[in-house]
Amino acid sequence: MSDLISLAHGSGGEASKNLIKEMVDSYLMNAVIARLDDSAVLDVGGGRIAFTTDSYVVDPIFFPGGDIGSLAVNGTVNDLAMVGARPIALTLGLILEEGLRIADLRRILASVKAASALAGVPVVGGDTKVVGRGAADMIFINTSGIGVVPEGLDISSSNAMPGDAVILSGSIGDHGMAILSRRPGIEFETDLVSDSAPLSGLVTSMLEVTTSIHAMRDPTRGGLATTLNEIAQKSNVGIVVDESAVPVKPQVSEACDLLGLDVLYVANEGKLVAFVPAGEADRMVAAMRKTDYGRDSAVIGRVVADHAGMVSLNTAVGGSRILAHLSGEILPRIC
Amino acid sequence: MSDLISLAHGSGGEASKNLIKEMVDSYLMNAVIARLDDSAVLDVGGGRIAFTTDSYVVDPIFFPGGDIGSLAVNGTVNDLAMVGARPIALTLGLILEEGLRIADLRRILASVKAASALAGVPVVGGDTKVVGRGAADMIFINTSGIGVVPEGLDISSSNAMPGDAVILSGSIGDHGMAILSRRPGIEFETDLVSDSAPLSGLVTSMLEVTTSIHAMRDPTRGGLATTLNEIAQKSNVGIVVDESAVPVKPQVSEACDLLGLDVLYVANEGKLVAFVPAGEADRMVAAMRKTDYGRDSAVIGRVVADHAGMVSLNTAVGGSRILAHLSGEILPRIC
Repeated sequence: MSDLISLAHGSGGEASKNLIKEMVDSYLMNAVIARLDDSAVLDVGGGRIAFTTDSYVVDPIFFPGGDIGSLAVNGTVNDLAMVGARPIALTLGLILEEGLRIADLRRILASVKAASALAGVPVVGGDTKVVGRGAADMIFINTSGIGVVPEGLDISSSNAMPGDAVILSGSIGDHGMAILSRRPGIEFETDLVSDSAPLSGLVTSMLEVTTSIHAMRDPTRGGLATTLNEIAQKSNVGIVVDESAVPVKPQVSEACDLLGLDVLYVANEGKLVAFVPAGEADRMVAAMRKTDYGRDSAVIGRVVADHAGMVSLNTAVGGSRILAHLSGEILPRIC
Repeated sequence: MSDLISLAHGSGGEASKNLIKEMVDSYLMNAVIARLDDSAVLDVGGGRIAFTTDSYVVDPIFFPGGDIGSLAVNGTVNDLAMVGARPIALTLGLILEEGLRIADLRRILASVKAASALAGVPVVGGDTKVVGRGAADMIFINTSGIGVVPEGLDISSSNAMPGDAVILSGSIGDHGMAILSRRPGIEFETDLVSDSAPLSGLVTSMLEVTTSIHAMRDPTRGGLATTLNEIAQKSNVGIVVDESAVPVKPQVSEACDLLGLDVLYVANEGKLVAFVPAGEADRMVAAMRKTDYGRDSAVIGRVVADHAGMVSLNTAVGGSRILAHLSGEILPRIC
C-alpha cells in the first residue's frame, strides 16, 4: 500500500476494498460491521433496526436523470432496502463550499424533497457546514438512514447459496455513462439518463413473493462485476453469469465501446441483484416486472459450489472467462 | 440573503440559522424536523429512537486535546445524549482528499476507536469516498448515530419553562480557543486543550436525579450565547445569566482578550447546558460534580417569563445587557 490516499481508494475496486478491510480490521472491528452489508442490522428493543450511511461527492452535481440531492436520497433508501428493511427516516449532512450558488442549493434541496416524497421517507434531521473556497467542490452530501427489518428476514451478501438464481432488476451502466457524458474532457452527446431511483417499493413487492431472498445488493461503484465478486467472496460460492442475459441499453453499449469501458464495471443507482432459490426465480421475475423499477428484470446467472469466491462469465460469443475484481481506479466521483 | 454561500452560513450564528430555517421551511418541513433538536426522536415499534447526523470539517484536523476522529465520535454521541437517549450505534462517513497521508488516516481511526470505546458506542457501518487534490481539505468525517430514548422523557429546546434553573457542566470556550491556538496566522502558545468528550455518562447520572430535565443542549458552534438564544426563542421564555457564575479558564479568558473574542460565543465540545426545575438544581449540580465531565458544574442562571425570546446577562461589573444572537461569522471550521 502506498503511503498516500489515491483516487483508486475511492473507486469501489480492489484498492478500496483493501483499504476498507485494513482499516475496519485494525480499528473498527465488531460483529455488526464485520458483515459489511449495505446496512447494519441491530437488535433494538424487541425489533431490528437497519442503519446505514453514505456520502455523495458526485461530479457533476447536476446530471441527466438526477442530481446529487436525489442521488443521495435514493442511494441511502436503497442501502436500507438491500437488507429488506422498510426505510423510515433519513438525515441530511451538507458540506458546502463558500461561493456555492444558493440557487443551486435550492435546486438540490427541491430534488431531495421530491426524492424523499417519491420514496416515502422523510428527512428528520440535518447538519450544514461551510468550508472556504477550494476546500471542497461545491457541495458534498451525506445521507444516513434507518429502517425497520421485518421479522424472519436474513438477507446478507454472506448468504448466497449454491442453487440460487441470480436476478438483475434491469439494464446496467446507465448511471455511470450518464455521469461521464457530462464530465469535462469526456462529454458526449446522448439521450441517456441516470437510473437513480428508490428501490424500496420493488423490494416490498419481492418480499411478497418470498421472504427467502438470501442476498441482495445494488451494484453501484464498481458495477455489477464488483458486486458479484463481493458476494461470491463473502458467501464463499461460485457465481456463473450469462452475458447475453444481462440487459444493456444500446446507448450505454455504444458509449462504453467509445470509451473503452467494460459495462459490467460501470455504476448503477437504480438496480439490484438478488439471490433467491432457483425454484422461486420465475415467480420473482414476474413480480418484479410488474413494478416501476423492475420492468426489465431477468435471471442472469446462478450460484454454484465450484470456483468458490469467483465469478465466471459465459460470454455472448460462447466462451467463458473469470470476471475479475476491479484492480484500479475506473470512474472517480461517480456517486 | 446574498446569492452565494459564505462562511457566515456555517458559523452557527444568525446567517446559519436563517439559511437553515429557510431551507427547512421550503423543502424539508415535517413534524419531526420542525423541532430542530440535536437529535430527531422517532416512534419505532413500541419504543423511541433518537437519530442524528453531523459532518466534521475542523481545521486543523489534529489539535490539542483531540482530532477530527474523536471530535466526530463525541459530537454525535453528545447530540444523542442531549435528548436523553442512550447512544447505541454510530456510522462513519469519510471523504478523503487524494494525497492524504495514510498514516494520518490511521491516526484518526485509532482516535475514533478510542473515543468509541470510551463512550461505549460501536461504529456499525461506514462509507469512504475519495476526491481529487483540491476538491476537499484532507479529510471530512460524517458521524450519524442512533440511540434509545427511555420512557417518560421529553427533553427539547422548546421545553424550557419559567422557574427553571440553568445549569452549565463546566468551563466554556476551551475547544474554540484550543483550535484557534493552532490556526495558521493566529497561533499562540498555550497549555489549553479542547474539552471534546462524550457526555452520555454525565447525562445518565443526571437522569438518575430527575427525569424532568426540560431542555438540554451542548453549546458547540456559536457557543453558550447562541445556544441560550436558541432555547429562549424556541421555548418562548426569557433567560437571565449571571456572568460571574460562568466558569472560564484563565488561559481561555486571556486568549479571548488577545483576539478580541467574547468567550460566550466560543465553541465547546464537552459541555452541556440543562434546564431543570429550580427545586432540583442543587441535587442536580451535586450529582453532576461527581462525574468526570461535570466537575465544574454550576447554576449560571434562570428562566423568566419576561423578555421572552431573549437572553439577558448580569455582568460581572454589576450591569445588565442583552446577549445578542451572533450575527456574522466568528470562527469557521471549528468543528
